[in-house]
Amino acid sequence: MLYHVRMDVRIPHDMAAGERADLIAREKAYAQEVQRSGRWPHLWRIAGEYANISIFDVASHDDLHDLLSGLPLFPYLEIAVTPLATHPSDINA
Amino acid sequence: MLYHVRMDVRIPHDMAAGERADLIAREKAYAQEVQRSGRWPHLWRIAGEYANISIFDVASHDDLHDLLSGLPLFPYLEIAVTPLATHPSDINA
Amino acid sequence: MLYHVRMDVRIPHDMAAGERADLIAREKAYAQEVQRSGRWPHLWRIAGEYANISIFDVASHDDLHDLLSGLPLFPYLEIAVTPLATHPSDINA
Amino acid sequence: MLYHVRMDVRIPHDMAAGERADLIAREKAYAQEVQRSGRWPHLWRIAGEYANISIFDVASHDDLHDLLSGLPLFPYLEIAVTPLATHPSDINA
Amino acid sequence: MLYHVRMDVRIPHDMAAGERADLIAREKAYAQEVQRSGRWPHLWRIAGEYANISIFDVASHDDLHDLLSGLPLFPYLEIAVTPLATHPSDINA
Amino acid sequence: MLYHVRMDVRIPHDMAAGERADLIAREKAYAQEVQRSGRWPHLWRIAGEYANISIFDVASHDDLHDLLSGLPLFPYLEIAVTPLATHPSDINA
Amino acid sequence: MLYHVRMDVRIPHDMAAGERADLIAREKAYAQEVQRSGRWPHLWRIAGEYANISIFDVASHDDLHDLLSGLPLFPYLEIAVTPLATHPSDINA
Amino acid sequence: MLYHVRMDVRIPHDMAAGERADLIAREKAYAQEVQRSGRWPHLWRIAGEYANISIFDVASHDDLHDLLSGLPLFPYLEIAVTPLATHPSDINA
Amino acid sequence: MLYHVRMDVRIPHDMAAGERADLIAREKAYAQEVQRSGRWPHLWRIAGEYANISIFDVASHDDLHDLLSGLPLFPYLEIAVTPLATHPSDINA
Amino acid sequence: MLYHVRMDVRIPHDMAAGERADLIAREKAYAQEVQRSGRWPHLWRIAGEYANISIFDVASHDDLHDLLSGLPLFPYLEIAVTPLATHPSDINA
Repeated sequence: MLYHVRMDVRIPHDMAAGERADLIAREKAYAQEVQRSGRWPHLWRIAGEYANISIFDVASHDDLHDLLSGLPLFPYLEIAVTPLATHPSDINA
Repeated sequence: MLYHVRMDVRIPHDMAAGERADLIAREKAYAQEVQRSGRWPHLWRIAGEYANISIFDVASHDDLHDLLSGLPLFPYLEIAVTPLATHPSDINA
Repeated sequence: MLYHVRMDVRIPHDMAAGERADLIAREKAYAQEVQRSGRWPHLWRIAGEYANISIFDVASHDDLHDLLSGLPLFPYLEIAVTPLATHPSDINA
Repeated sequence: MLYHVRMDVRIPHDMAAGERADLIAREKAYAQEVQRSGRWPHLWRIAGEYANISIFDVASHDDLHDLLSGLPLFPYLEIAVTPLATHPSDINA
Repeated sequence: MLYHVRMDVRIPHDMAAGERADLIAREKAYAQEVQRSGRWPHLWRIAGEYANISIFDVASHDDLHDLLSGLPLFPYLEIAVTPLATHPSDINA
Repeated sequence: MLYHVRMDVRIPHDMAAGERADLIAREKAYAQEVQRSGRWPHLWRIAGEYANISIFDVASHDDLHDLLSGLPLFPYLEIAVTPLATHPSDINA
Repeated sequence: MLYHVRMDVRIPHDMAAGERADLIAREKAYAQEVQRSGRWPHLWRIAGEYANISIFDVASHDDLHDLLSGLPLFPYLEIAVTPLATHPSDINA
Repeated sequence: MLYHVRMDVRIPHDMAAGERADLIAREKAYAQEVQRSGRWPHLWRIAGEYANISIFDVASHDDLHDLLSGLPLFPYLEIAVTPLATHPSDINA
Repeated sequence: MLYHVRMDVRIPHDMAAGERADLIAREKAYAQEVQRSGRWPHLWRIAGEYANISIFDVASHDDLHDLLSGLPLFPYLEIAVTPLATHPSDINA
Repeated sequence: MLYHVRMDVRIPHDMAAGERADLIAREKAYAQEVQRSGRWPHLWRIAGEYANISIFDVASHDDLHDLLSGLPLFPYLEIAVTPLATHPSDINA
């Protein structure tokens, strides 16, 4: 099942540079591992913003929450989830 | 180039049933033709709403506007466009 | 899987009284049939508003959309869907 | 009487890890004690957010306020309360 | 139990003058009857707006909803309900 | 003249406990003194929130501002003022 | 006492031209009569909008409401009232 | 002096096609005449919306209001005006 | 030319008392000097808020920006500017 | 291709004066270099605010994001991007 997720990153300005770099490196590794598993088929940067729009493909709301709350950046993310259904005009559906 | 587009459909309640059915049929035909051209790679229904989230892949802002303003439903759509850039953690980028 | 749904009813003021009464009767019959199927475990009126808060228990986003878009009042509803996950402090989970 | 309550958790990022862990442990114990008393019949996690939607069943507004303001996390919660009435289509009412 | 209620009146501009006058007369009679019963202790006009702020004193959410949905103007009201608890600094509590 | 005032309390989380307790004690004393003067006839807690809804009865906007800006908590309050006029259906007016 | 008032004009597009012209003429006459009485010391057009910002100088909230609800355009106005107090840095206060 | 203006077009759906075409033709002629006068140096379509962003260069707020309220589409426009000052980093200033 | 300006003051709570007192004293001196120059004809306190509504009379957007950005409190102000034009019903215009 | 960009500057109040001055100097140098390249044809200050409205002319969303995320102030900017298409009434198009 597909979920549309927007994430806005709000890292506090006073976080130490090393801690920040480590956090972002771990986020990238986690994100790429989930992408390779097939559960994160799309990941786009919103032009001009420190934010992304993603599509997740997971089996349940609980799976989605586990995946998102496991993001190293999760404590600093503002997240909005929108469940996606099949569109009747989608030629691939 | 990719654009994220959300469309909310606001057809007036007093439109005649025949006119409405014709409009929706023409919208579907147009949407499927654009999908087949490769310029509308994703089209999802927002669960529970008469709205969709779409990804368009076109060459310019003008091409996007021409495509969207050509939708038969365009006069009845509330549209929000978000330009998408490559995400540094995207494994396919 | 559980979905939290808020529905605000916006029936046009100029709808004929008979049409309106028929619509509401069909809505009630549909709602009660879905409740009896176990897919609509909770249905509450928001005090003072022509609106409800509901919990649906269905297998997928597509099932939810089919169920909601089948509501006789659907063309007149403003709907907001929130997917619900298990809470770690829920004693029944 | 039923109350629909949404709680968004906003714990300051600079709270010491031990203080935070203690706070969350006390919140969980408190929440489970109230659930066992029958006054907190539903507690759900909003998928992707550090937030919950709850249903409380208490005798009065004062009881609700006492219960909520007694939550160990109360100083860090953004709370919205909606009173719920019986819905005329509810088959269990 | 006390409820704070704000009502904004949105009567359609094309309602016939006679129907409108009758509706407002019935609203006034109903409001005064409820006031005399002690369940509507305060009713104020918001200066400059076709809106009021009221305090209701009723036994339950269901009683409040019955009372409000019985207002002749109910189909034309935008209503927001806020449950009021005792304030610890209130000298009359 | 009556004014409807909503106050949301936003005390910084890092205020020292003693300073906070002193501030709240002075707020309570001030609030009760004003109530006894007759200028603050109603003071209610919004259920579930660290906020109140109040009715003030003072002679002028300047009197209201002096009273409110004299609250010990004033630097930490988000305040919204609504002037109240007589309602034509008020049976006590 | 001074009140800051913003008025946005929302005349329905289907009002007959003669009715509209008459309404606007009566509004102008009323506005100028109130200005001459000294109770409407400032009246400005918001550049680019069919809206105004006004300062009223009246004795009470009831006087303000009577004055505003007497405007011929009142049924078509969206009005926001802000009570103004003396500013401590005002050299004329 | 420069003004940034956003205009959203809201033509009623029930306007007759001929009236609508005539209105749009007159709007275009007026817009092009003002552009040729040098007072409307930039006019852009917002991609995907029936809206524009414009820069006007006129001598005063009154001139701006006269120009905008003279637009044939003015009764159907939602307009937001932002005054623009010189930016200290502008290499052409 | 007239500009309507609303300023909300947001001084950080952790500013040292002396620095704060000095800042406010300099703000007052600056404000009164500008008032005496005729460029700040009206300055009102919004009742109950640490905010003001002002009318400025200056020659250009650049003059307004220079004046406002010169306020000692400028780094702590949230400012909204609205250009004012002559109203056709203003008896003094 | 043209992009309309609004940037609101939110530099933390506790940044050291030297760090702040250096940051702003580097921002200005960067902004002027990009302007000289032709990719930032317009840069305006919003009167009364620490914010700007800009027009960028770049080849793609990726180019825009690279340019904006390279701004020395980027971590402290709230940015909103709007893609601009050709307007059919633009006499220069």
